[in-house]
Amino acid sequence: MFRILVLHGPNLNLLGTREKSIYGMQTLHEVDMAIGQLARREGVHVEARQSNHEGELVTWIQETHGQFHALVINPAAYTHTSIAIRDAIVAVGLPTVEVHLSNIHRREPFRKRSLIAPVALGQISGFAATSYLLGLQAIIDYLRRKQADAKHDITT
Amino acid sequence: MFRILVLHGPNLNLLGTREKSIYGMQTLHEVDMAIGQLARREGVHVEARQSNHEGELVTWIQETHGQFHALVINPAAYTHTSIAIRDAIVAVGLPTVEVHLSNIHRREPFRKRSLIAPVALGQISGFAATSYLLGLQAIIDYLRRKQADAKHDITT
Amino acid sequence: MFRILVLHGPNLNLLGTREKSIYGMQTLHEVDMAIGQLARREGVHVEARQSNHEGELVTWIQETHGQFHALVINPAAYTHTSIAIRDAIVAVGLPTVEVHLSNIHRREPFRKRSLIAPVALGQISGFAATSYLLGLQAIIDYLRRKQADAKHDITT
Amino acid sequence: MFRILVLHGPNLNLLGTREKSIYGMQTLHEVDMAIGQLARREGVHVEARQSNHEGELVTWIQETHGQFHALVINPAAYTHTSIAIRDAIVAVGLPTVEVHLSNIHRREPFRKRSLIAPVALGQISGFAATSYLLGLQAIIDYLRRKQADAKHDITT
Amino acid sequence: MFRILVLHGPNLNLLGTREKSIYGMQTLHEVDMAIGQLARREGVHVEARQSNHEGELVTWIQETHGQFHALVINPAAYTHTSIAIRDAIVAVGLPTVEVHLSNIHRREPFRKRSLIAPVALGQISGFAATSYLLGLQAIIDYLRRKQADAKHDITT
Amino acid sequence: MFRILVLHGPNLNLLGTREKSIYGMQTLHEVDMAIGQLARREGVHVEARQSNHEGELVTWIQETHGQFHALVINPAAYTHTSIAIRDAIVAVGLPTVEVHLSNIHRREPFRKRSLIAPVALGQISGFAATSYLLGLQAIIDYLRRKQADAKHDITT
Amino acid sequence: MFRILVLHGPNLNLLGTREKSIYGMQTLHEVDMAIGQLARREGVHVEARQSNHEGELVTWIQETHGQFHALVINPAAYTHTSIAIRDAIVAVGLPTVEVHLSNIHRREPFRKRSLIAPVALGQISGFAATSYLLGLQAIIDYLRRKQADAKHDITT
Amino acid sequence: MFRILVLHGPNLNLLGTREKSIYGMQTLHEVDMAIGQLARREGVHVEARQSNHEGELVTWIQETHGQFHALVINPAAYTHTSIAIRDAIVAVGLPTVEVHLSNIHRREPFRKRSLIAPVALGQISGFAATSYLLGLQAIIDYLRRKQADAKHDITT
Amino acid sequence: MFRILVLHGPNLNLLGTREKSIYGMQTLHEVDMAIGQLARREGVHVEARQSNHEGELVTWIQETHGQFHALVINPAAYTHTSIAIRDAIVAVGLPTVEVHLSNIHRREPFRKRSLIAPVALGQISGFAATSYLLGLQAIIDYLRRKQADAKHDITT
Amino acid sequence: MFRILVLHGPNLNLLGTREKSIYGMQTLHEVDMAIGQLARREGVHVEARQSNHEGELVTWIQETHGQFHALVINPAAYTHTSIAIRDAIVAVGLPTVEVHLSNIHRREPFRKRSLIAPVALGQISGFAATSYLLGLQAIIDYLRRKQADAKHDITT
Amino acid sequence: MFRILVLHGPNLNLLGTREKSIYGMQTLHEVDMAIGQLARREGVHVEARQSNHEGELVTWIQETHGQFHALVINPAAYTHTSIAIRDAIVAVGLPTVEVHLSNIHRREPFRKRSLIAPVALGQISGFAATSYLLGLQAIIDYLRRKQADAKHDITT
Amino acid sequence: MFRILVLHGPNLNLLGTREKSIYGMQTLHEVDMAIGQLARREGVHVEARQSNHEGELVTWIQETHGQFHALVINPAAYTHTSIAIRDAIVAVGLPTVEVHLSNIHRREPFRKRSLIAPVALGQISGFAATSYLLGLQAIIDYLRRKQADAKHDITT
Repeated sequence: MFRILVLHGPNLNLLGTREKSIYGMQTLHEVDMAIGQLARREGVHVEARQSNHEGELVTWIQETHGQFHALVINPAAYTHTSIAIRDAIVAVGLPTVEVHLSNIHRREPFRKRSLIAPVALGQISGFAATSYLLGLQAIIDYLRRKQADAKHDITT
Repeated sequence: MFRILVLHGPNLNLLGTREKSIYGMQTLHEVDMAIGQLARREGVHVEARQSNHEGELVTWIQETHGQFHALVINPAAYTHTSIAIRDAIVAVGLPTVEVHLSNIHRREPFRKRSLIAPVALGQISGFAATSYLLGLQAIIDYLRRKQADAKHDITT
Repeated sequence: MFRILVLHGPNLNLLGTREKSIYGMQTLHEVDMAIGQLARREGVHVEARQSNHEGELVTWIQETHGQFHALVINPAAYTHTSIAIRDAIVAVGLPTVEVHLSNIHRREPFRKRSLIAPVALGQISGFAATSYLLGLQAIIDYLRRKQADAKHDITT
Repeated sequence: MFRILVLHGPNLNLLGTREKSIYGMQTLHEVDMAIGQLARREGVHVEARQSNHEGELVTWIQETHGQFHALVINPAAYTHTSIAIRDAIVAVGLPTVEVHLSNIHRREPFRKRSLIAPVALGQISGFAATSYLLGLQAIIDYLRRKQADAKHDITT
Repeated sequence: MFRILVLHGPNLNLLGTREKSIYGMQTLHEVDMAIGQLARREGVHVEARQSNHEGELVTWIQETHGQFHALVINPAAYTHTSIAIRDAIVAVGLPTVEVHLSNIHRREPFRKRSLIAPVALGQISGFAATSYLLGLQAIIDYLRRKQADAKHDITT
Repeated sequence: MFRILVLHGPNLNLLGTREKSIYGMQTLHEVDMAIGQLARREGVHVEARQSNHEGELVTWIQETHGQFHALVINPAAYTHTSIAIRDAIVAVGLPTVEVHLSNIHRREPFRKRSLIAPVALGQISGFAATSYLLGLQAIIDYLRRKQADAKHDITT
Repeated sequence: MFRILVLHGPNLNLLGTREKSIYGMQTLHEVDMAIGQLARREGVHVEARQSNHEGELVTWIQETHGQFHALVINPAAYTHTSIAIRDAIVAVGLPTVEVHLSNIHRREPFRKRSLIAPVALGQISGFAATSYLLGLQAIIDYLRRKQADAKHDITT
Repeated sequence: MFRILVLHGPNLNLLGTREKSIYGMQTLHEVDMAIGQLARREGVHVEARQSNHEGELVTWIQETHGQFHALVINPAAYTHTSIAIRDAIVAVGLPTVEVHLSNIHRREPFRKRSLIAPVALGQISGFAATSYLLGLQAIIDYLRRKQADAKHDITT
Repeated sequence: MFRILVLHGPNLNLLGTREKSIYGMQTLHEVDMAIGQLARREGVHVEARQSNHEGELVTWIQETHGQFHALVINPAAYTHTSIAIRDAIVAVGLPTVEVHLSNIHRREPFRKRSLIAPVALGQISGFAATSYLLGLQAIIDYLRRKQADAKHDITT
Repeated sequence: MFRILVLHGPNLNLLGTREKSIYGMQTLHEVDMAIGQLARREGVHVEARQSNHEGELVTWIQETHGQFHALVINPAAYTHTSIAIRDAIVAVGLPTVEVHLSNIHRREPFRKRSLIAPVALGQISGFAATSYLLGLQAIIDYLRRKQADAKHDITT
Repeated sequence: MFRILVLHGPNLNLLGTREKSIYGMQTLHEVDMAIGQLARREGVHVEARQSNHEGELVTWIQETHGQFHALVINPAAYTHTSIAIRDAIVAVGLPTVEVHLSNIHRREPFRKRSLIAPVALGQISGFAATSYLLGLQAIIDYLRRKQADAKHDITT
Repeated sequence: MFRILVLHGPNLNLLGTREKSIYGMQTLHEVDMAIGQLARREGVHVEARQSNHEGELVTWIQETHGQFHALVINPAAYTHTSIAIRDAIVAVGLPTVEVHLSNIHRREPFRKRSLIAPVALGQISGFAATSYLLGLQAIIDYLRRKQADAKHDITT
């Protein structure tokens, strides 16, 4: 059974309580519920955590070693400033999908550059809470394909 | 029944026959088959076309008016150079999702800037053929939500 | 009798049917009618064409040789990206006026740079359909002045 | 009867006496005569002034309040350096057309950026003295259209 | 009674004990005393906190919701690097004044850009501890004006 | 008794009569009245002048020598373009506070750079007319502190 | 027998009829004749085509697969703007030589950057029609060397 | 007898009374005396003027027409910002030498760019008041050489 | 006896367990052992700590006051983003040596800029764990020299 | 008989002994042999020299005056840094072809800019030792054409 | 026995005789003595040379082939401008350590970029003459480790 | 008696024999003669040397120590690229005047930046051979003034 860590970056704990026109009506709890629902449907284990601390996010990524098969992360503000999170992802070598609620290409210029994207499998941005669900599907699809390839290698 | 146009930009007709390590083993025909399968499962109508001509892509986008409810586009090389495609998307005002097979944030610097992303709902990049399927799901989800909101507005 | 070619770039075929608040209520057909009216009043021959294809615009400019005395062009999106159109204008050496419906200096930064303006006589931008009429007047004025100079040179 | 102020920026008082190959043979007086002629033909009142002082141009623009319906300005060298003139135009909120004798897009790089254009209706550049006449026509056309719209709003 | 939170960013706990020629002789405690004195004189409640952790500052800003009417913040080093603090301020929507002890425009180039200023009411920089007192006065003045406007709206 | 010069840059004479939503309802006269009131309360002499001419502002700054103890200046548009005003402030060596009605960090990019700030004590921006009052208080505070230090030096 | 495709980009159909001082007196037909002559002398098959359409050039490059051993291309204006042509060259993996009639390093700054050169074997620019002949010789030399290496690998 | 105009830009009227360590002990009057002395020794007529107004400097340069044979100018702060002064020098076509008291290449980056130097014969910077004397000698030398050439042309 | 603090930045706790080809086989514990060995040999006291939290590193640097004579720091990812750590080093005024395991000049462009280097004595980069030992030697050498100079000053 | 100088810049003396995968197996001596062979076949005189000293290359270029009809130069590292070599080429006015063994457009960004190319007839890069042979052919072709033109001018 | 070449770049021959406050009191001879002492202690052979000529440094690096096992170089001014020295280091493939007396990250911006660092093992800057000794130790440590690895490979 | 070294940089040995329209008709020998004449008239000793080698110029500047009182240098091409010459001038601490024959501000952009000017007393550019004579006069004037100051210090 695949184990996937979902990380929410700074300020995402306010989701659904503020700036609803931009980020949607759902609270972080409701987003996590929807993620859990999809996880159960797909038969994978998902754990979700939120932190405003760059260092805590770094530590959590480090601790995935041996505990999780993949990472879905919305680094929020740290997307554009945290080399430490990038280095942590590279260090643990976990397949990672970067997701964003809003379309970051439509916002302030400093939000265009992602330090995380070049070390992730891919990036999904602009679909509100659905971004997480698409990201989860993408990573499950990736893990299954890799597992299938591995089996194929053994049997042949 | 939602009608969705899927556009493939320049050189995507070569898919699966060249540079397989980057873009995957599937041919464009196989990708279109997978798209069709998902469309049937979701009960939407999808039509897919490919062109190497910027002008032809512009014309096809213009012609969606009254024919399609949404657009999923992989503008390929034109992502980074075509203001004409961007203007066409804005002109017809169709909800648009931009998809990429490869993770454009990992490649040459000139592939980082998308002229299309700021006028799209969102962008999905890096999951090979799966990017199209996620993009299709994202746009269907969007159309259903909007339809639901519209109904809700009427009934209340 | 002066013969003048008027070229409309990509997406201008949608004029008057979309984004009316920006580009005005007039369709491209109505704009061409107004151009024709002014042409008759001034006693010049005007022919107008539209294309979404950069290559087709290049070819039309090339074919003016021996057929037209001047060019009025609204290169639309290609204003900012087409060196090919610029090279064609230089190659045929036709006096050219660049016109824009909207004030391009008020829009996205990438619309500030015109590749065409440095090889045109001048640029008119921001007066909706009137930009075309001012451009036509400017080129007629230019052609008459040059003709007068030529006559003057002969008589003296 | 529309009242339009025409402002000539620094060094334009030398027109026709120096660098004739670039700016043409006409003196500023002759240009003003041609402007006056067009004004009479169109039945509008035009007043023209020239100054080498940025501050004086600012003051004149401020004083249009209640005196003029529109502004045609050739800011010359101040086009590229004067935020004060820009602020004055925005402050009085007068419809403004920016004109240039030479094609500023063909000259030194520092002449490409106009601080005035983003707060003007539009810009006309490159047609020598004719630029003023085209600018005057553009602004008259604009005022008439607005007047017509206003009447239309009242009658309906 | 207005409740105002005063936040001191990283290294401000060293105030008055180091680099006195730049930041003045007063310790952070003495600055807070002066702030308290002004608060009492103006009849407002002020609470002051300091942290070296970006994440802790983010959390404190989030927690102002329903607890404080306004924020006075000296983000110190995080002024130039923290999108997370900026996002928190926008999320809670609290009126915010940014203050700096030193004149940041006189120092290293990387201190010129403030990520916070564009989401604050205003910025005060260069007056040592007095910057805080001016900032407090500015925010009180703002809150009173808004309260007066609100009352005025009700009574009329 | 301290003598302080307050200078208002270009277009500030229009204050309160135009763009009220940005700059507030108060006219320049009313702002000067409020400044005068605070001056009387604090027991200092204040004189206020406005000019649209960069050269006149330079001359007035030069003439403060022996006449004034400090300068409060809102250089408006010249903030971003006038090296001459900067040089004048440095030449006379008068303690200077730079104030702005609007938050210049929220506006067009070219308003972010202040040529004056690096030669001023500090900068206050974003509090409408209150910016002047805070600036006046800041400079009085500065002058008193310096006077106290000087006395202290003598007595010890 | 080696089969080599020679592609001429936009506006090269005008060769020898316009701007002769820059591009030389030879028409495109004459250039193709000279290319053919050298091809016969070297015993290789050469086919030459010209297009003003970026999309058509892309398609022709795609179609070389299994038809040609190498490509000599003068992308003209598209040298500096076409990622699509670059992608096509990479996709088919054909050894490619980029040629230019004029010395592109002597012209406008925007002509300095070639998007094609980094995916070509090499670049030859500045020798008028002779550039094509040198490019053809370079590619023949390359193909022969590779053939010789292959034979050598087999025999040893 | 050669007639030479010497122009002093903004703040130079303060010379010798402020910032003596940078600009030297001599007042502007003393500098003008030294210039006059050299002029008498060389048998030329020199007139010197100072202004803080960009517009006034422009006007004075315009008025040299028919009155002066050459210009020596220290544009001070306007060196780096005034396109209007540059345009005036080009318009009157007078041989011009640009001088600076301080070495502008040693100061703030924004003082490195001179808008005047590209339209002057040459630039002399860094020798305090001596810069003027060297500039005067340079222009006299230039005028004598040109006169000699002219005579030579006539006699041969 | 000199007391030296050694700080390891984010992700360095993973040393020797991941990306061994880049950072070497030694774990952080082994590196600290080697440091301790050198410290004993040189007769100095060394204490080593690691944190993923920028704020914690800032606090530890602040606390060196009166506790340590010097700092050896590998700021890792924070090298390029943390003004807060830089400010802390400046505030405590401790002699500091910056070390890096990998050669940061060989990696991504964003790793070239160090915010710490300009406030350190010097920088050592590229020698894996040996970088720490060289850094320790450099700082000991520095402290001894300074002590010798101080003694020398007293005895003479 | 044409006399052509071939210059090899710094480090080219190591050719064929190091980095063979990039620069090929041929030593500089072998390259010079191939050049000599082609020279004899074409009936021209060629002399080849190599230097690691920028100054020596400058001197050799200066000494071509009256000794050589043309220059083929591979400036190697000095391509990107030597204005002195550029100035020497311009000073002697000799027709010059710039050649490179590797494709400089494929390498580090600082190798993209050639200071020599804008003063050369043309540039050939990327064909290993063949680049020299193509360069020699290009210059011989050029010299013959010029000679033919000159004869033609005389006979007509 | 390891043989190591130490190269001193331009102006280092003046060491200890000029600018002692920046570069220290030791002459180059004394530095070389200290290097020799360390070499003897470590049992390696070291040879040191100085040149002001870029070309001579290039030649010396080339000649290390078969003569030296490693290079310690202080390229001084050529650090920032010499691609030729960089190319020589790459060509000979010798392990290289770059050292600097002063902390180059604290000086003029043009000293921040090292062309040498990306092709060196590592860089040591800021410790005066000690930089050389640390560099020597680093390279000896590197050579020993590589020797040990080689032995290990053989024995296992 | 003052001893002044005059250094001519690369390609200046060609003076008067090539590009006479830019650099004038005088040979370097004639320029040196004129310099000698002025030296004798002013009673100073002048020695002039030319080199194409950066390293030789560096060495000559170093050797001025104890031999010369000042330096007049035309670094020609090395003006824009040689940090080594700059460092030599700073190292010997000799008062230096930088001269240029042509107006470097009128030429290619890369000639605008002088690495030498920020360490020279001043710069004179644009007066052909006269630039040297003005430079010599400037440095003599400087040396005399300093001598006078020194005497004055002693006598008072």
